[in-house]
Amino acid sequence: MANWMLDELKRRVYEANMLLPRYGLITFTWGNASEIDRNSGLVAIKPSGVDYDKLKPNDIVIVDLDGRIVDGMYNPSTDTATHLELYKAFPEIGGVVHTHSTHATSWAQAGKDIPCYGTTHADYFYGPIPCIRNLTAEEIEAGYEKNTGVSIVERFRNENINPLYVPGCVCKNHGPFTWGRNAYEAVHNAVVVEEVARMAILTRQINPEAGETPQYMQDKHFMRKHGPNAYYGQKNM
Amino acid sequence: MANWMLDELKRRVYEANMLLPRYGLITFTWGNASEIDRNSGLVAIKPSGVDYDKLKPNDIVIVDLDGRIVDGMYNPSTDTATHLELYKAFPEIGGVVHTHSTHATSWAQAGKDIPCYGTTHADYFYGPIPCIRNLTAEEIEAGYEKNTGVSIVERFRNENINPLYVPGCVCKNHGPFTWGRNAYEAVHNAVVVEEVARMAILTRQINPEAGETPQYMQDKHFMRKHGPNAYYGQKNM
Amino acid sequence: MANWMLDELKRRVYEANMLLPRYGLITFTWGNASEIDRNSGLVAIKPSGVDYDKLKPNDIVIVDLDGRIVDGMYNPSTDTATHLELYKAFPEIGGVVHTHSTHATSWAQAGKDIPCYGTTHADYFYGPIPCIRNLTAEEIEAGYEKNTGVSIVERFRNENINPLYVPGCVCKNHGPFTWGRNAYEAVHNAVVVEEVARMAILTRQINPEAGETPQYMQDKHFMRKHGPNAYYGQKNM
Amino acid sequence: MANWMLDELKRRVYEANMLLPRYGLITFTWGNASEIDRNSGLVAIKPSGVDYDKLKPNDIVIVDLDGRIVDGMYNPSTDTATHLELYKAFPEIGGVVHTHSTHATSWAQAGKDIPCYGTTHADYFYGPIPCIRNLTAEEIEAGYEKNTGVSIVERFRNENINPLYVPGCVCKNHGPFTWGRNAYEAVHNAVVVEEVARMAILTRQINPEAGETPQYMQDKHFMRKHGPNAYYGQKNM
Repeated sequence: MANWMLDELKRRVYEANMLLPRYGLITFTWGNASEIDRNSGLVAIKPSGVDYDKLKPNDIVIVDLDGRIVDGMYNPSTDTATHLELYKAFPEIGGVVHTHSTHATSWAQAGKDIPCYGTTHADYFYGPIPCIRNLTAEEIEAGYEKNTGVSIVERFRNENINPLYVPGCVCKNHGPFTWGRNAYEAVHNAVVVEEVARMAILTRQINPEAGETPQYMQDKHFMRKHGPNAYYGQKNM
Repeated sequence: MANWMLDELKRRVYEANMLLPRYGLITFTWGNASEIDRNSGLVAIKPSGVDYDKLKPNDIVIVDLDGRIVDGMYNPSTDTATHLELYKAFPEIGGVVHTHSTHATSWAQAGKDIPCYGTTHADYFYGPIPCIRNLTAEEIEAGYEKNTGVSIVERFRNENINPLYVPGCVCKNHGPFTWGRNAYEAVHNAVVVEEVARMAILTRQINPEAGETPQYMQDKHFMRKHGPNAYYGQKNM
Repeated sequence: MANWMLDELKRRVYEANMLLPRYGLITFTWGNASEIDRNSGLVAIKPSGVDYDKLKPNDIVIVDLDGRIVDGMYNPSTDTATHLELYKAFPEIGGVVHTHSTHATSWAQAGKDIPCYGTTHADYFYGPIPCIRNLTAEEIEAGYEKNTGVSIVERFRNENINPLYVPGCVCKNHGPFTWGRNAYEAVHNAVVVEEVARMAILTRQINPEAGETPQYMQDKHFMRKHGPNAYYGQKNM
Repeated sequence: MANWMLDELKRRVYEANMLLPRYGLITFTWGNASEIDRNSGLVAIKPSGVDYDKLKPNDIVIVDLDGRIVDGMYNPSTDTATHLELYKAFPEIGGVVHTHSTHATSWAQAGKDIPCYGTTHADYFYGPIPCIRNLTAEEIEAGYEKNTGVSIVERFRNENINPLYVPGCVCKNHGPFTWGRNAYEAVHNAVVVEEVARMAILTRQINPEAGETPQYMQDKHFMRKHGPNAYYGQKNM
């Protein structure tokens, strides 16, 4: 991979990471964004524990899909192994984000899937946002971060969920992971999960019997943004 | 319509749209404001899916009441047909706003009218803020955005509600639409719906038995701002 | 009253009003602060319906205790008569503030006194913050704003509450009024009521059986800030 | 202690105090941070009741462990005696912070320990965040602020809690105290307690039956940041 391409990848991942505090998703260093270059199989990711207001593009770490550091002076995020599992299992995705954003993390802590209560949700997630089971003590011992990724993939495969139709989840007692075709889309979906999580709490507070959005309305909204006949936005943007 | 008048209409609608993120009502591109010029029947509206921080006055799209693009290089908001139905049914209104603001959308998702719990509500909305029913699968198939407008008008006509006395609603599983004599007033009412929605949730949390504001107090507050003997504010402002 | 003294009073009231949006207590024009000059009996108050970001010191209106405009080019706040009743009944106070701040207004809408759940409350309010009853239709007809003040005074007199020990209340289905020795103190107490109101909601959410702060602890906190042996802060500040 | 060392200590404590409003933990003057120089036994602490936006490094007060003012022109924080008890009982700590931050104070007012609902909590606090009992009337009479510290120490000693593993608590009907190896760490932990307190409320709102994080997962998270084999962050930062 040419140096200028690596630099470009680092710059993109730096900018995606910097959007996380801007969107109010981050306290201290609790979060990270990555992007993969599918040609080379190289992944750019935030260094572990580095403050967002000190982060520079060149601090971004490059690892291969086995987690070996290829470039960079820092240790990569401790969550790197989770990102790598997602890239290996979901070839259609190109970016991954992890945060501890307040409302999405609260759903993770509550151990519940986030139901689709409205079109804000249906515009981005086709069905509930899954809450992934806890790892066992053995799985944590064998490789906590890697097996976090494995447990996400397990649920998506078992229930035959298209990872681009449901571009995220919350991990029980932990927090949200989101993804997309690139790091920017993964950030975008992290914002969506947080806002949808917040409104779902309020919805149930107003009406504990609130039902999910009718399926035909979910179909309409998701497909007007994502299907082959999508008509939201501009064709050439 | 003279070019300078079109430019002026675009500028007004641009400025109304830019107030939406400033008042914290907007995430990403989730919202839009429009205004109609009643002489020409032309409507200026935000283009679909364009970021607020990139929006320029000249990006505003001009359509006629049948939804045909008269001026502009972008597609208009996907919600345009909803705006047009409201303009056609309510000749007294001149501006329409749609957002996914957090608390108003949560009432929409809960499927409940927002009761009038206090004078903040009564100063702007004379009675509850209606939650409009879901469309049927057939109505969505026949024209989702147009029939969203039709369903709003249906409720206001069936219950004989004056659209300037109740300048907004929430659409079930979707979010709020507000309106006013112009785009600026529609934005103002979008802010009111969001704040009233937020306080109504908290009111019920403190006291699940909380009652609505006595009718004579609602009368007093709405009329001191809106009736023929209004005395709030300054006569010549 | 000398012109320079009037100008100084206007400037103080202008600055007190401008603190309200800064502390996040105000949406649009929903609020007002006033201060009385006890020697002349003149009251300076915000003009009605003027935007905070356009307000200038010279826009502040001067009225006498009968509500006659003595100086100023605008109508005074519609709530002026409420302020005047408080100044007439409570000679120890010098400033009054009214807002529709979110959490205090929600207690007003819920129709409940705010219990003293902790030292944040006890540092400023000695006992619960009273929720004042609704006016009757006849009282509203006879003079809504004046009788709002009368109803506040009635409760404080009936229960023998010292208005400097409980420097505020919430009016049912309306919102908070606070006061103090001057306009600045009244603003300060408006911030306290809002924060105390917010924490009281959360306290009951965590523990519906939460009890009030023990009386001896309330005594300690209020008196360490306000009694003759107060030792909080600096002697000469 | 050399003058330049005192100045350096004051500067550090000034900067720690200024982080409190920046992180949204402070209303008015409701909070304070201190740090101890263990060699000299001198403690630098915020002066009582001084506004954060007027605070200067040289306003920081220096006291000895008996509370005598050694340097400074102001009275120290009224909570100084609480800080001193913590320094005397917990030799491993070097900084203490007290705030009235909204959600942590609400747990204090509710009188409940904050359960460990997720890894955000487990990354910093090994087990629940204790809610310390109210003082008796006699304890308050004998020395309110000193006995507040005594009651914290009592709980930690009785339950054999390592103060660096559980670097904070909430005091019933009052608010949070946090600590760390220095003032900056104590501020950091004050932010953590507030965010963890907020998410714990939301977690129980979503699922009143939510269980605590499995012990083996708490072990993993706390130890990956704090144990001898910690691997979060960078070795040399």
